[in-house]
Amino acid sequence: MALIVQKFGGTSVGNPERIKNVARRVAGYRQKGDQVVVVVSAMSGVTDGLIKLAKEIMPLPTEREMDMLLATGEQTTIALTAMALHALDIKAVSLTGPQAGILTDDVHTKAKIQTIAPKQVHALLDSGHVVIVAGFQGQTSAGHITTLGRGGSDLTAIALAAALKADVCQIYTDVDGVYTADPRIVPGARKLEEISYDEMLELASLGAKVMQSRSVEFAKKFGVVFEVRSSLNGNRGTIVKEETMNMEDVVIRGVSLDKNQAKITLVAVPDHPGVAARVFKAIGDAAINVDMIVQNISHGLGTPATDLSFTVDKPDLPKARKVIDNLKADIGYREAIADENIGKLSIVGVGMRSHSGVAAKMFETLAKEKINIEMISTSEIKISVVIELGQGEQAMQAVHQAFLG
Amino acid sequence: MALIVQKFGGTSVGNPERIKNVARRVAGYRQKGDQVVVVVSAMSGVTDGLIKLAKEIMPLPTEREMDMLLATGEQTTIALTAMALHALDIKAVSLTGPQAGILTDDVHTKAKIQTIAPKQVHALLDSGHVVIVAGFQGQTSAGHITTLGRGGSDLTAIALAAALKADVCQIYTDVDGVYTADPRIVPGARKLEEISYDEMLELASLGAKVMQSRSVEFAKKFGVVFEVRSSLNGNRGTIVKEETMNMEDVVIRGVSLDKNQAKITLVAVPDHPGVAARVFKAIGDAAINVDMIVQNISHGLGTPATDLSFTVDKPDLPKARKVIDNLKADIGYREAIADENIGKLSIVGVGMRSHSGVAAKMFETLAKEKINIEMISTSEIKISVVIELGQGEQAMQAVHQAFLG
Repeated sequence: MALIVQKFGGTSVGNPERIKNVARRVAGYRQKGDQVVVVVSAMSGVTDGLIKLAKEIMPLPTEREMDMLLATGEQTTIALTAMALHALDIKAVSLTGPQAGILTDDVHTKAKIQTIAPKQVHALLDSGHVVIVAGFQGQTSAGHITTLGRGGSDLTAIALAAALKADVCQIYTDVDGVYTADPRIVPGARKLEEISYDEMLELASLGAKVMQSRSVEFAKKFGVVFEVRSSLNGNRGTIVKEETMNMEDVVIRGVSLDKNQAKITLVAVPDHPGVAARVFKAIGDAAINVDMIVQNISHGLGTPATDLSFTVDKPDLPKARKVIDNLKADIGYREAIADENIGKLSIVGVGMRSHSGVAAKMFETLAKEKINIEMISTSEIKISVVIELGQGEQAMQAVHQAFLG
Repeated sequence: MALIVQKFGGTSVGNPERIKNVARRVAGYRQKGDQVVVVVSAMSGVTDGLIKLAKEIMPLPTEREMDMLLATGEQTTIALTAMALHALDIKAVSLTGPQAGILTDDVHTKAKIQTIAPKQVHALLDSGHVVIVAGFQGQTSAGHITTLGRGGSDLTAIALAAALKADVCQIYTDVDGVYTADPRIVPGARKLEEISYDEMLELASLGAKVMQSRSVEFAKKFGVVFEVRSSLNGNRGTIVKEETMNMEDVVIRGVSLDKNQAKITLVAVPDHPGVAARVFKAIGDAAINVDMIVQNISHGLGTPATDLSFTVDKPDLPKARKVIDNLKADIGYREAIADENIGKLSIVGVGMRSHSGVAAKMFETLAKEKINIEMISTSEIKISVVIELGQGEQAMQAVHQAFLG
């Protein structure tokens, strides 16, 4: 008998028929004798509908009340899911986040879980109930309802698995697991049996949008082993866990392509100390996230000057451009060039720590395809390059073939 | 500075525009310096939509989960109402029933309020907030969410007014107040300035559907004076309060007509002790509410026998008919006659206790109109007669003219 936490996202509970499917899956585990905690999101579309309603009342709704409003989405799903289990003669009880003992800080709309008091959940499990918990929500110590922000239901599931010391945590989604690359782009992409937290984190931040980074970080911090798998079939998914010795045998775990970046280059920036600091302070003050930063070689002769390039999310480009224009007089660069026509190709793998020549092999592969590299950025377990957007998929296929083919 | 509890029903908060109207009204009181607690229902249609959703999951949804589901309706409204006040720069905070300290018994879907711990509400009022409370809901001492059943939001408002010792309790609805008769039937009907709890109770049970009886009973028990008034205009409504001396000066407070009753007559029932008990035990066991009961005079000679007539809600007639048919062999009545073609006309007034001849005047008025009386039933402050449905409106107009014209 295992204690299993299962999380189903908005698409998996998108209508009564799908909720019944979820219930049948849960019932299967329960009937084998497992104890099951189910975490559900709002039915797909519900949250957006509530946000629209709020914006009809005021353009920028207050955050505490937004949480009060949005929390109803998950509360609706838990009640319906419990009913669907009752219809199968399975004992089940729904709990809101607050009822499940999920305590958060008081940062409304993006609260952090502080502790979970799982007494009530344990008691219900022990009396033979499936416990259905509303994802994405909790309450402050003063009793205000909070929500956890994007990816919050995954976080609820992983935090509950940690607090309950669950044997298994399953994140059900609409894909079969984590792939070596996006199968829509790379036909030879394979589902991974397992992946380390760090690799999953790098992939999450690189456009392989299976899960938000914060849930993976939480799982890593508390050592929660979880499985990403499909709610549409019975296939085994991908296990995400602490790195093991044999993981290093595989040089590269996966390849990802992020088409959502734009690049800004400041040409001929005077090579003084503190210039880069001023640029990125101004960008940060405008609440723009910078991803890659590369300072290129000096141009020509005369005054020492460098080229400074960085990437931002494409929707932030106009705002970033404005910040940079405002700095021109102050910093004195020659010109600023914006380029939306880029893709960021990354390879990720803990194995690259113990294998030399990985970068060289990636660059050679791209050279063979006559693909020019515009920027390079590396971490311990990741190499990213910026290339022309139009060559992104070709590059991805070639690199996947070279390392994983 | 007064402490005011205001309750707005589903129609008054039926869409964002109406919620903004409610907020403007609340803001008006707040800006005059009053402390305001607002109780709201689910937006009209929302509860029905949730019930439909639940029935797609299972035909007879479990009651605890039904409460979990339906409670989201009011929670949505409180958040939107608080936002609408924020848009007017009024400090406001929403509270669910549980957050407002409303403790109930554990009879899901029709819970009774046991106590209210208004500490949180008081604290928020004292810090200058309008407090928006979700009507219709509470929680058990074990922390389960409950709902209060039909008319539950009125009950929340009146119970909160009692717990907070509010100076004023206003029930906003889509009519201007309580009338001497339905103005759609009796053009001369007048809005009452005040009415006693008992009169209001009789009217509530007689088809003048302004409020459910239980809320009026609660108000009577705890001495909560409240005003029924319109959310569509600024007119003063009707004050409902304990009977005062001068109320008896008015013989009749109002006239009502209930078209939703049906009559069953058992002809020639053997006149033995215990027969009526057996009939109404069987009817009660079938969960059918009986309203009027009249035992008529004996028919003809031979074995002593009486006619027994009673009325039930029209939708219950087929069920009641079946119960009666099953009793035939046991009881041995000659035949059972069902009649849906009836109306129940009632006059209500605490003044009839101290004025004689009220019944006679009512019967004479009907006789002059050539309207036959089929059944009569009286209480201390009410006289009801059953007449032919087709003559109901004519009878109502004549009686209103005689007593109140």
